[in-house]
Amino acid sequence: MERSMITYRNLDACSSYKRLAGIPRVDVGAALSPEGCKRCAIAMPEGFTYSYAAAPVDEAILDALQALADEQQLVEKYVALASGAMMNTGEKRLVLHHLARGKLAGAVVSGGKDLRAFYEGERKRVAEFAAAVHSGAIVGSTGKPFAAAVQIGIGGSDLGPRASYIALERWAKAEKRQRMEARFISNVDPDDADSVLGGLDLETSLFILVSKSGTTQETLANETLVRNRLEAAGLDSSKHLVAVTSTTSPLAQNPGYIASFFIDDFIGGRYSTSSAVGGVVLSLAFGPETFAEFLEGAHAMDAAALEPSLRKNAVLLDAMIGLYERNVLGMPSTAVLPYAEGLARFPAHLQQLDMESNGKSVNRDGQPLAYSTGPVVFGEPGTNGQHSFYQLLHQGTDIVPLQFIGFAENQHSGDALSMGTSSRQKLAANLLAQIVAFARGKDDANPNKKFSGGRPSTLLFGTRLGPRQLGALFSHFENKVMFQGFAWNINSFDQEGVQLGKVLANKMLSIMQGEKTDDAVLAAMARLAGFLE
Amino acid sequence: MERSMITYRNLDACSSYKRLAGIPRVDVGAALSPEGCKRCAIAMPEGFTYSYAAAPVDEAILDALQALADEQQLVEKYVALASGAMMNTGEKRLVLHHLARGKLAGAVVSGGKDLRAFYEGERKRVAEFAAAVHSGAIVGSTGKPFAAAVQIGIGGSDLGPRASYIALERWAKAEKRQRMEARFISNVDPDDADSVLGGLDLETSLFILVSKSGTTQETLANETLVRNRLEAAGLDSSKHLVAVTSTTSPLAQNPGYIASFFIDDFIGGRYSTSSAVGGVVLSLAFGPETFAEFLEGAHAMDAAALEPSLRKNAVLLDAMIGLYERNVLGMPSTAVLPYAEGLARFPAHLQQLDMESNGKSVNRDGQPLAYSTGPVVFGEPGTNGQHSFYQLLHQGTDIVPLQFIGFAENQHSGDALSMGTSSRQKLAANLLAQIVAFARGKDDANPNKKFSGGRPSTLLFGTRLGPRQLGALFSHFENKVMFQGFAWNINSFDQEGVQLGKVLANKMLSIMQGEKTDDAVLAAMARLAGFLE
Repeated sequence: MERSMITYRNLDACSSYKRLAGIPRVDVGAALSPEGCKRCAIAMPEGFTYSYAAAPVDEAILDALQALADEQQLVEKYVALASGAMMNTGEKRLVLHHLARGKLAGAVVSGGKDLRAFYEGERKRVAEFAAAVHSGAIVGSTGKPFAAAVQIGIGGSDLGPRASYIALERWAKAEKRQRMEARFISNVDPDDADSVLGGLDLETSLFILVSKSGTTQETLANETLVRNRLEAAGLDSSKHLVAVTSTTSPLAQNPGYIASFFIDDFIGGRYSTSSAVGGVVLSLAFGPETFAEFLEGAHAMDAAALEPSLRKNAVLLDAMIGLYERNVLGMPSTAVLPYAEGLARFPAHLQQLDMESNGKSVNRDGQPLAYSTGPVVFGEPGTNGQHSFYQLLHQGTDIVPLQFIGFAENQHSGDALSMGTSSRQKLAANLLAQIVAFARGKDDANPNKKFSGGRPSTLLFGTRLGPRQLGALFSHFENKVMFQGFAWNINSFDQEGVQLGKVLANKMLSIMQGEKTDDAVLAAMARLAGFLE
Repeated sequence: MERSMITYRNLDACSSYKRLAGIPRVDVGAALSPEGCKRCAIAMPEGFTYSYAAAPVDEAILDALQALADEQQLVEKYVALASGAMMNTGEKRLVLHHLARGKLAGAVVSGGKDLRAFYEGERKRVAEFAAAVHSGAIVGSTGKPFAAAVQIGIGGSDLGPRASYIALERWAKAEKRQRMEARFISNVDPDDADSVLGGLDLETSLFILVSKSGTTQETLANETLVRNRLEAAGLDSSKHLVAVTSTTSPLAQNPGYIASFFIDDFIGGRYSTSSAVGGVVLSLAFGPETFAEFLEGAHAMDAAALEPSLRKNAVLLDAMIGLYERNVLGMPSTAVLPYAEGLARFPAHLQQLDMESNGKSVNRDGQPLAYSTGPVVFGEPGTNGQHSFYQLLHQGTDIVPLQFIGFAENQHSGDALSMGTSSRQKLAANLLAQIVAFARGKDDANPNKKFSGGRPSTLLFGTRLGPRQLGALFSHFENKVMFQGFAWNINSFDQEGVQLGKVLANKMLSIMQGEKTDDAVLAAMARLAGFLE
């Protein structure tokens, strides 16, 4: 690939985008053929295959999407990002979650600091700390070894790490990698902390306070609840907490914590599972070597995403198919449907990753956009979803594109035959059958039993869900969101939309504390809910 | 209200609907005023208030929505349904979940059977059974009392009961109502059952197999896994299982179960928490009196929903606002945002309830519709969601109407002050502030920090989440979905859209077992995923 100047332009200023709308649309049911199943499959790292046989594309549309990817310089922008370009334009920050997993380009130095060395150094500090906890060199305030790790964090400090822990628990059991239980406290609703604390032996619990700024309201409130409980149980809370924070936060080098592990402004919350935010809890729970494998799987996917041809680059193609569905076919939401109970909370992580990154109405320079950006993302594991919202997906008035995920093998061994097949076979049969059912539909004399079909999907299929595969999935969706953000010409790395609520909540708290306010509506709302006379 | 003939007509055949589109739209930010907060609030049973101060309606639109509710005879149709009219037109069945909670009309007799007496009789049998388990009169195969109840079911046999158990666990702890732990196995992925079984003492576990037909593939596969584990542990599995099923199913009166409790075809899966489907597990976990209170709360809401004026009938208004947002304002999805950790899985229940009921493209007589029906429904508890997908809700290119739920009090007592306020106050302050932020927005010289506002929401606010309040919430959303289904002239009570997938999955299983197939695409899919050479 020849090096070229990078140019930023809105999607609707691209000549290739204008051409795209004029290309005849594809009949999804017709594209799903035996030959198509073979042709429309891309081999990916860590044993994954990406199948787009049921996607709404043909060769002409693929050519046009390739032209758009080229015109918007998606891979070049990715290389620039990985090399340390200031891609978070709103906050004027680098975007370096890829660097936490491995080098895609040369060294990235900022403020005289080699950032790869910084991330790698923190990963080693975390690994040494986890080893010391596992060996009993670091113990609780009564001298007992720690048995449970409890993450206190919200948003990106919760969703990705929690989804990862749930995803690897069965695998770790089978592989004898589980070293500690992990639990998560996130909501400021005190019933959340109460529920988690009620099931714990505090004497053997190690809490991980995660807040980049060290000022997150919910996380600090939960820290207070936890410290109160620890002290009430006669424990020294400073011997039961560690912090994951930035070097300049009030939590850093603070005697209230056993240790502090550091993150920086160049890895956003929703991208931070690859940093100490995910590293501490996953290394404690499953061992540092497991977390290292997660990073290796993610890095392998990151490297594969550098390929310029979307016929060979699954994530680039996945991103472009999503854009085509959103902007040309006008579909406002996307369902993520993992046929893997371990991925039960992966859709909740993706909701943040995708909707917080690409739910934007202005371009990277702050100018209003005239086209749709990020869709609504939702999902639940299959086959559960089949007995729930799939009715609407099959026969509703709107078409929702679907992203299936599946595996060939169980995480743990306990399976059994019933009615002649294993549960694993039933799970896979349902997944594959749904793709066909959605795409092809079925005619019926009874209109109530008719399926119009034409409902597009893609499939990520892997061998078995372990740390490398999980890291690969994290990378896949991060890079999908990144490529789409580049195509839409937005900044996928800030989140100004959360600020107004914070400001008004603090105003509301002042009103509840009896302070006068000039905001009559806030006062009326507090009154309505019985928080004022 | 004068009795009138009931007529069924499509929404777009209603003169009141045609008028609705011509009424000027409301500026949501302007409608949210101190006076509006007071005026736009409806008192509901069980201490709830419904606030529509931030909804996109004014008096003119309310009048038009009332006219539409009247023209579509929503309350009359509800009365007919409760009286035993054959409202599930596709399957030719009555719709009687209301009757399981109390009488709204006269007796409902079908096939010579008084159905209220049947539901009430089963509730009493369940209560007696639960009392016998609690007293130790019924014990496991080794003579030990049961300590855990494990529901095996999928879809409606899982989502509503599971959401309910999670919702009441903290409350039960505080009120000393918890009698047994409960767990849930649903997915055919064997890692689901494995995960639940790994954390159980099988000797003291009682399994509840829930399948109306007694033939649900996933549930029977999980039963096999569970029986294998019980037998491997030297236990007599027939002394550790009960069944919830129909009187004609293979699970009824079967010596493989301690007992069978009965349901019928007139209460659909997604409406079945009020039947033995929810009754057995909730009565075992929290005592039969708690389940009775759940039913009382639901019945109180059912009764309030008979009021013909939508200015006094919160659920009727809620339904019509949702329809206005969907059909007039053209908004394709809705977020449900409970500011209550106990309601963590309530959105997953609502996803099934709403999307499976109203995700239809034909009317109750099977004719294709030319307007949108049920929206995509998704949600997560606040404040968690604020740190996740709210970015898109505030600043995305699409507007998503929001349904907030909140409470004034904690379920359990453990709260603490931090930064001068309790966690409860912070939770409520965030909820109320979000409503204001979404509606009014905020201008800013920096377009990246600008909030356009005009994003509508409604609020269900209660005192404290307990069984009556939970029953009330279940009823509210069931009746909302019912009223919308009547307005759209669809059958909200069948789910033909799930059938095709089942048929193709069974075909796929035959292929995996080596049978020849004429379906080359299914065979190609199986090959793609490595299930065939």
